[in-house]
Amino acid sequence: MGAIETEVVVVGAGIAGLTAARTLAGEGRDVLVLEARDRVGGRTENVEIGGQPNEIGGQWVAPYQDFLRGLLEELGIELFPSHRSGRHVYVGPDGTVSRYEGHDAPLPDAAGRSYADAVAKLDALAASLDPEAPWEHPDAAALDAVTYETWLEAEVEHEAARDLLRSFLAGGFMTKPAQSFSLLAGLWVIAGAGSVDNLFEPDLCLAYRVVGGSQLIALRLAEELGERVRLGSPVRELDWDGDRVRVTAGGDTVAARRAVVAIPPNLTGGIRFDPVLPPWRLRLEQHLSQGSVIKALAVYETPFWRDEGLSGEGFAPYELVREVYDNTPPSGEPGVLCTFLAGENAERAGRLAPDERRDLVLDGFERFFGPAALEAVDVVERDWSAEEFTRGAYCATFDVGGLARLGPDLRRPIGPIHWACTDISGVGNMHMEGAARSGRAAADAVLAAL
Amino acid sequence: MGAIETEVVVVGAGIAGLTAARTLAGEGRDVLVLEARDRVGGRTENVEIGGQPNEIGGQWVAPYQDFLRGLLEELGIELFPSHRSGRHVYVGPDGTVSRYEGHDAPLPDAAGRSYADAVAKLDALAASLDPEAPWEHPDAAALDAVTYETWLEAEVEHEAARDLLRSFLAGGFMTKPAQSFSLLAGLWVIAGAGSVDNLFEPDLCLAYRVVGGSQLIALRLAEELGERVRLGSPVRELDWDGDRVRVTAGGDTVAARRAVVAIPPNLTGGIRFDPVLPPWRLRLEQHLSQGSVIKALAVYETPFWRDEGLSGEGFAPYELVREVYDNTPPSGEPGVLCTFLAGENAERAGRLAPDERRDLVLDGFERFFGPAALEAVDVVERDWSAEEFTRGAYCATFDVGGLARLGPDLRRPIGPIHWACTDISGVGNMHMEGAARSGRAAADAVLAAL
Repeated sequence: MGAIETEVVVVGAGIAGLTAARTLAGEGRDVLVLEARDRVGGRTENVEIGGQPNEIGGQWVAPYQDFLRGLLEELGIELFPSHRSGRHVYVGPDGTVSRYEGHDAPLPDAAGRSYADAVAKLDALAASLDPEAPWEHPDAAALDAVTYETWLEAEVEHEAARDLLRSFLAGGFMTKPAQSFSLLAGLWVIAGAGSVDNLFEPDLCLAYRVVGGSQLIALRLAEELGERVRLGSPVRELDWDGDRVRVTAGGDTVAARRAVVAIPPNLTGGIRFDPVLPPWRLRLEQHLSQGSVIKALAVYETPFWRDEGLSGEGFAPYELVREVYDNTPPSGEPGVLCTFLAGENAERAGRLAPDERRDLVLDGFERFFGPAALEAVDVVERDWSAEEFTRGAYCATFDVGGLARLGPDLRRPIGPIHWACTDISGVGNMHMEGAARSGRAAADAVLAAL
Repeated sequence: MGAIETEVVVVGAGIAGLTAARTLAGEGRDVLVLEARDRVGGRTENVEIGGQPNEIGGQWVAPYQDFLRGLLEELGIELFPSHRSGRHVYVGPDGTVSRYEGHDAPLPDAAGRSYADAVAKLDALAASLDPEAPWEHPDAAALDAVTYETWLEAEVEHEAARDLLRSFLAGGFMTKPAQSFSLLAGLWVIAGAGSVDNLFEPDLCLAYRVVGGSQLIALRLAEELGERVRLGSPVRELDWDGDRVRVTAGGDTVAARRAVVAIPPNLTGGIRFDPVLPPWRLRLEQHLSQGSVIKALAVYETPFWRDEGLSGEGFAPYELVREVYDNTPPSGEPGVLCTFLAGENAERAGRLAPDERRDLVLDGFERFFGPAALEAVDVVERDWSAEEFTRGAYCATFDVGGLARLGPDLRRPIGPIHWACTDISGVGNMHMEGAARSGRAAADAVLAAL
């Protein structure tokens, strides 16, 4: 049992919390970060494969993510281009496999035009939103009242185009079914990335990976902060009044002037706040849910697909294993393929025994790359919905109608309590970029208030 | 700090938990109920008005609620008919006030036919559901993919009929906006009551009140259980394995063979389970949210509206104060009017200062009953969204698509942990009836397992 005094206590050592702490420490403020897990990084986590770091959580960096890239430079962390050269693989609705170059999956011409039209509509709508405040759009309530699925059915003529757009946004980002979130919620992620292409286009959104694995960002931040980061300290109580907080985590009590709670809003119900948070906050927390995703990495002696002129990248919107990427380390060995079972696919796959899920993943990879894909030497997987201190991924997003109604309160400080995490960020929402920006913004608000 | 051993620990002393405990104790089982609040009753709570019990939570009993009525008989609790004689008041879309008899608000003929058609459709759909397992309906996924609002727009021809159906089901029961829940979720509540008439029709759903106030049910149950109910004991940790649980609440540790967690699913994230609950359970908890409701009781020297031949009941689907009922005690004095600000109206009103909200309520009552309604001697209110150990009312309901996908897990025991509450009940769902049935069902399952 320890009683500690500091100026700012930060709850959560993901990229958001650690960026907040770094900013505060850089301004000479006394800060302490309490992390529930026995590691830092939140939804980024390295695993060692073939003696080299790989990632079982978030991993890619896009060229337009300038805040994150600036942070990486300051931390001395380098990027390398994702391996994407060669032909990609597309598995169509009837199971036929085709190989293609460039970035357009081989749709029939009519579907391709329908897809391009729909993308133009989404881009125009997203461009009309302020990514920092999508709820301020003059049609926010109407855009938030229609499900993304209903919008697809009403606005996208060709079925194959709908399937692709459903798969990209619901499967690829929201990681929940297309009827469970609104058009506005989907537009927010697009606006946060800047455009549909920025968000969906592999040349952009998959452009770079982090040398040393993406958890290195949090590890370096934590290294800088040293003893100001405490692991294995799940915060269970937070007492507060106008100008002080007292946080209880494990045996420790930390008194501070301000708190930055840098955990996703679906987890804040696990902290007992005294006094209880206001009704608008208790309501808001209930209208968000994390998406569902199981990430799996299959390890091969070599990246055998490269020998056949394949990139290792593929897309199969009608299959359980919907996507695949070459996640081989920069050294070129061992070969690593990576997939994300997302949304309903994650819900289903999460009920299987580990062996069954391994078979499902490898069978899925076989569709893309043939029988050699069955010969994995290892499969590493992580069901992010099973993680006590995450409860899903990639992000907590609102139910239908929640963003327009309750979004304005998402970042609203309560007394001395400020909030940070990618889930509430604007630019970079749902990405490491948003986490870093959100941490910085919370720290700036605390500095202004201290 | 105490260490207590029992056979079954029950978390939550609402009607569900206490009914479970009573059933278990009745079978000679050793049981202990831990209640977070300093009172029993959950979403039922008596307040004293004019020296007599009145209710600031759930209150009505319907003639078809046979399980609850049987329980009341066993507990020696009596019902009295709600005061509903006289003319009711309807405030239309243009603010015009009309007085009517019987149960049909004065809609134009065409709207009346449209309303009747829509009710027939809802009834037919609800009759095709098993209220105990709506997710097993062959079209469950499709019925759950469409929002109630979208269904109204597609299936109900006349605007005034849509407005009424929106107001009744979204405002009157789900207490959340019509686009935020699915047709299937709405149908479940109808099926749980038996029919649209059972659910909406004041002659049925408002038929009886409890002599002594509805909290008396929980109070009597707790009285029977005596020292087996502990107040002020919020459960914060629940350790479990295959055949035992250990619960930590305040300074006490309770070891037991089984647990009945009788709190709504939106609150279970506040308990730390060790080992952590499986991913399907962590997911499910995030896809439910309590509705929003502020109940207000205005107190008058006498029920002055009765002198004008009015029932005290009124309906104004286009106003913030959407509904009003005569909540005068059986003695006839003081006069009490009751309303529920629900859904978005509660969200808005919840942000006002108490004085402003009081004015809003009385101004609303004036619309129905004229200037005398402004002369309240007292207004008692409760924002159920502000209650730490409830976080809304009437019920936790699924987001769009959640019921079909995640509903099958709603009552699924996890090791020695069973669940009870009206939110997960079938027959009587969202009502005291469902709470009592759910508690009984959980107790039966525990008895079978012990």
